[in-house]
Amino acid sequence: MQPEGTLRADGVHVGGDARQRFYDSRGYGRPLEGNEIVLTHLEAAHLLFRGDLSAVSVDGDALGFEPFFVHAAAAVDRFAVRFLVYTDLRDRGFYLSPTREGWPGDRRLDGDGEDVDFVVYERGASPPDGALEHRIRVVGERESIPVEGLSGTTLAVVDEESDLTYFEAVAIDPDGDTRYDPPDDLAGVLLEDRVLAWDVPGDLYERGFYGRPLSGRASTLEGAIQLSLLEAAFLAERGSLRLDRALPLDAASSDARTDDDGSVLAPVDAAEAIRERGRAVEGDRFDRRLRVYTDLRDRSIVPKTGFKFGADFRTYLEVETVTDLPHSEHLVRVLEPDHVFVPRELSLDVRLAGGVRKRMVFAPTGSSSIDYLSVARLTP
Amino acid sequence: MQPEGTLRADGVHVGGDARQRFYDSRGYGRPLEGNEIVLTHLEAAHLLFRGDLSAVSVDGDALGFEPFFVHAAAAVDRFAVRFLVYTDLRDRGFYLSPTREGWPGDRRLDGDGEDVDFVVYERGASPPDGALEHRIRVVGERESIPVEGLSGTTLAVVDEESDLTYFEAVAIDPDGDTRYDPPDDLAGVLLEDRVLAWDVPGDLYERGFYGRPLSGRASTLEGAIQLSLLEAAFLAERGSLRLDRALPLDAASSDARTDDDGSVLAPVDAAEAIRERGRAVEGDRFDRRLRVYTDLRDRSIVPKTGFKFGADFRTYLEVETVTDLPHSEHLVRVLEPDHVFVPRELSLDVRLAGGVRKRMVFAPTGSSSIDYLSVARLTP
Repeated sequence: MQPEGTLRADGVHVGGDARQRFYDSRGYGRPLEGNEIVLTHLEAAHLLFRGDLSAVSVDGDALGFEPFFVHAAAAVDRFAVRFLVYTDLRDRGFYLSPTREGWPGDRRLDGDGEDVDFVVYERGASPPDGALEHRIRVVGERESIPVEGLSGTTLAVVDEESDLTYFEAVAIDPDGDTRYDPPDDLAGVLLEDRVLAWDVPGDLYERGFYGRPLSGRASTLEGAIQLSLLEAAFLAERGSLRLDRALPLDAASSDARTDDDGSVLAPVDAAEAIRERGRAVEGDRFDRRLRVYTDLRDRSIVPKTGFKFGADFRTYLEVETVTDLPHSEHLVRVLEPDHVFVPRELSLDVRLAGGVRKRMVFAPTGSSSIDYLSVARLTP
Repeated sequence: MQPEGTLRADGVHVGGDARQRFYDSRGYGRPLEGNEIVLTHLEAAHLLFRGDLSAVSVDGDALGFEPFFVHAAAAVDRFAVRFLVYTDLRDRGFYLSPTREGWPGDRRLDGDGEDVDFVVYERGASPPDGALEHRIRVVGERESIPVEGLSGTTLAVVDEESDLTYFEAVAIDPDGDTRYDPPDDLAGVLLEDRVLAWDVPGDLYERGFYGRPLSGRASTLEGAIQLSLLEAAFLAERGSLRLDRALPLDAASSDARTDDDGSVLAPVDAAEAIRERGRAVEGDRFDRRLRVYTDLRDRSIVPKTGFKFGADFRTYLEVETVTDLPHSEHLVRVLEPDHVFVPRELSLDVRLAGGVRKRMVFAPTGSSSIDYLSVARLTP
């Protein structure tokens, strides 16, 4: 016969040999005096579910799993979704502790991790002092998740059909090894939302991986490349690119045509003209993306567009030549620093990156330094 | 020596043997009197680029490719991006005609396709009467694309680095072959944003693929499943599911606890209670998604959550048993009927679907019937 618990104000109390049976050997609850322990609703429901408790007495009624579950769902916030995650992790053989005040998980977080629901111990480790493997945040797919504070946690997302997906968020500090200095005498024309440059040295593309040659199979033209506004702004900012002409954005409308006075813009003015164009077509997002582009180039990493993957950039850590390009390792999405994820968006980005053997990296970009956050799917 | 063209009000005129050389044998421009033809700026720039025209005379100046390109970019809307697509398709061996008024492409569209930039003829076919392969819409990655009017066109998206991605949009009418009728006596409890049902027959999940069993590896519990709000609303609407209890959304806050009067809701009232809960957690989106869920079930298709793929649903055309589940063929995203795509969003969805060997299907859902739109990447 399995023991019975009793619901009191601070949780479900179990006596008899509960301390040895549940706490010492399997990491449930927290010990009280003697052999008594107290369990959270969640722990008690799980033990009922497994058949390890026979019933929990609530106001004199001995409840089995189903009525206790409904009772707990009415009394405890987000009970159903947290139960799913707790059960899944227990099924996978982990010991875990809730972070409710007074429980071992709370002590382990030391006040840091207010959104964390459980701490998960390494396999074979147990509360209260075992090494930690994950700090789990349980999130329903309809909740939202601020990017701030994500680092160091593992999200357990419960979707509408109660399936679970785990995402691990880790701060990273990427570093590349691409050596190439662009020349200082590039000249281009600003056309709508790109820059055309003629007569550029072949290395600009082939070794620096700037731009894209404007060449069809049948063309005899050499040395013409198109630069993105980001590439052009970066090259102008570092003094490499001047503009011979800047056609206005709506070139075809005659009103706008007067903006183009045909004057040559030195790099410093070219940079400003390109940034202005960037803001005109993308808004503030352009400045954020330029900050990340510049930061990555400063880290000797080559960022190229991630458009085909729905990201801002794909990155190459070490480019020797474009002809012999390495696999691109990261997909980078630039975010506002106060960005709030919808779990579905996270699922889409991370799934895609995994499918093309890349790591999904988010770059929340405000006025301070950029904290790159890698998010990957995880099977605990 | 290659011929020279002259820019006039209606385009670039070329005389000599231009009709045979450019129109008859390669599908450029449109014929005038005798052997003269007229080219759009785009066609003329392409012929300059290939070296097939030696120059174009503009106000008495003989311009080569570069100055003519800049001149055209200042005179013609979206010239640079359209040039890239035109050149790419020509490089791939296609004949294509602009849809400018009077040009062969315009006549072929017959007024239907105002956003189409070029018509592309089947390989080996030519203007004006050859069979059409694509109606191309050129879109910069920063432009937006309404879902309305997409069907039947091929998008050529030019990203910020001037790379091209083609997406073909086709209307589809999906049809499944899943045969299963749920029983009429299911009972559940509405908990936050899901429904728990006890004692359900195994076939509900195993053959109908409704819900997800609430069972861990170690559990002895049988017949308990969790239904999504969509599944529960659908089952209640068809008279299969009643609610024994409906716990309020914020069950843990004592204010809300009074909503639960413990009364049993018959299917018709249960359906309304579940829809209300759906709207409370998702807004209008819930009703749109329920319409698509219901429409797919009515087509004998099984929709399950597409969360892991960032979509609303993945679908199974024919489920015999869940144990022997076929490959899911579509990812479905539900949209408002006036949805406007950002190209990056389209790129992400379609890329992911391709990576998991599924077709991406958009379901714009308003008050009229649902027109499913399949969008796939294409290499012309």
